[in-house]
Amino acid sequence: MLFEKIAFIGFGLIGSSMARAIVREKVSGHIIAIEKSAQARQTIIDLQLADEVYEDIAQGVSDADLVIIAVPVGSYAEVATQLRSALKPGAIVTDVGSVKQSVIEAVCPHIPESCQFVPGHPIAGTAHSGPESGFADLFKNRWSILTPLPENDVRAVEKVTQLWEAIGANIEIMDPARHDLILAITSHLPHLIAYTIVGTATDLEEHMKNDVVTFSAGGFRDFTRIAASNPVMWRDIFLHNKDSVLEVLQRFTEDLTALQRAIRWDEGAVLEETFERTRKIRREVIEAGQADYATATGSQERTPPVSDLPTRSDSAA
Amino acid sequence: MLFEKIAFIGFGLIGSSMARAIVREKVSGHIIAIEKSAQARQTIIDLQLADEVYEDIAQGVSDADLVIIAVPVGSYAEVATQLRSALKPGAIVTDVGSVKQSVIEAVCPHIPESCQFVPGHPIAGTAHSGPESGFADLFKNRWSILTPLPENDVRAVEKVTQLWEAIGANIEIMDPARHDLILAITSHLPHLIAYTIVGTATDLEEHMKNDVVTFSAGGFRDFTRIAASNPVMWRDIFLHNKDSVLEVLQRFTEDLTALQRAIRWDEGAVLEETFERTRKIRREVIEAGQADYATATGSQERTPPVSDLPTRSDSAA
Repeated sequence: MLFEKIAFIGFGLIGSSMARAIVREKVSGHIIAIEKSAQARQTIIDLQLADEVYEDIAQGVSDADLVIIAVPVGSYAEVATQLRSALKPGAIVTDVGSVKQSVIEAVCPHIPESCQFVPGHPIAGTAHSGPESGFADLFKNRWSILTPLPENDVRAVEKVTQLWEAIGANIEIMDPARHDLILAITSHLPHLIAYTIVGTATDLEEHMKNDVVTFSAGGFRDFTRIAASNPVMWRDIFLHNKDSVLEVLQRFTEDLTALQRAIRWDEGAVLEETFERTRKIRREVIEAGQADYATATGSQERTPPVSDLPTRSDSAA
Repeated sequence: MLFEKIAFIGFGLIGSSMARAIVREKVSGHIIAIEKSAQARQTIIDLQLADEVYEDIAQGVSDADLVIIAVPVGSYAEVATQLRSALKPGAIVTDVGSVKQSVIEAVCPHIPESCQFVPGHPIAGTAHSGPESGFADLFKNRWSILTPLPENDVRAVEKVTQLWEAIGANIEIMDPARHDLILAITSHLPHLIAYTIVGTATDLEEHMKNDVVTFSAGGFRDFTRIAASNPVMWRDIFLHNKDSVLEVLQRFTEDLTALQRAIRWDEGAVLEETFERTRKIRREVIEAGQADYATATGSQERTPPVSDLPTRSDSAA
């Protein structure tokens, strides 16, 4: 076994999915779940998702070879202060946070010298939260990005890499600043936009809102799915990746204003040219195998796309 | 049969899907395809999608009981001028355009007194274009909105209703101005946003762009699908629904600016509250049965959602 005992601080969608996969792939024989929420702890016990369940972090991590921080990134500072004196000598600490620079700042000062912190971030998730929402295949064929520290022991990085590969993920090593900027555009900005547009609809007069819900198939529906994601997790992401988010948001706003102006002044050629260019990116995404044809009919299997098959009404006008 | 001969002006995704469904459901035994593009005409012939194929509109419509305009809304004015003297007395004209007020203005003056124009708009589509992309199930359980004119003969409206119901759609009758505003928020704004965000990524430095494509699973991927839609069709929609699009865009920009400010000033409570509210809309969309669980594995069937099952990585952070 790669690790004797693995402790999860936070056991929601990501933590519980990792635990399920770790048990299935025999990466470790012993799962410790640490959860602040009494309701979540009860769910973990009821669904038998862990061997030990704790509320207290220091108690929970004391015997673990690997500690995985899987709470919203806003809670890292508080979590880290409780690790310092509690970690087993030689333990590896890793995380799954969507932001890496602020996480490194929050955690590193509290890691004792005998231990290693290897920051990580799997690019996987659903719009659902809680231990009951996890499933073992969540990371299959997904990227997991590691942003190791200069002082990291290569063996610790290698063990975390092996863990991810064992549960189906592909590993990419990246600089934390670069990670935060890339994720700002591929994930954080899209979520902010989706939250905004769904919020704009929420503020409509009641009778119009009903129509928006009824006729949501025209594109809006996709945004509602994204905008149903965990509010606390996303609040923390925006606040902790502030600089990158504000930078890409500024670029986005400029581009949106340019299109707005083109609409106002009937500049059809500007619109058409922009829309032609964006088509190319879609083709590149398809070729990179990142277009997801997973269905929600129960199967979580992802079929490598051969061609871009039609998905109904994704782009109904 | 409901109609003896049906002529389509424009035979792309929507027109060819309707034709396929019409033939399958025996709504009409004779399909006439009118297409400006020589390549599209050849595809229609090769795939045997129509009984007659024309380039010329006047020739194509002369014998039809029902004429369906299915070209980008920017071409309606040009199409309509060719209808006046060509339509068979008593013919019904309908359309599938995503904007209704400007379409009515463009078409009505050219409809002879013996004929009827019943404007319509099916809320269905994919990110694909052309006669080869159509499929008979596209409208199954989808809404088709009709915006009849005060002067319409009720029998003409009834026949168009029957056509849509025969090919699986549900009919909603709506005022054209209301249609244009609702669609501006459910469809036109989401597309504009998706085009913008994918365009913003396109303008990134080349090495970053590659990372964006590789790690697109975090939300961006959904936007690339929307932003792969037909550029000419969308150019026309924005220009022809200008007032409604600019109005909802203004609301959206205000809301986005408020969130941007909350991020800059660390107002976590504002963010969390907004994100909690948008979750509710998702539940309403699910309950309204508009959340799509269609897969692209070949089946175009839509399973009525029982619960909101996880879709992988839709909201990976």
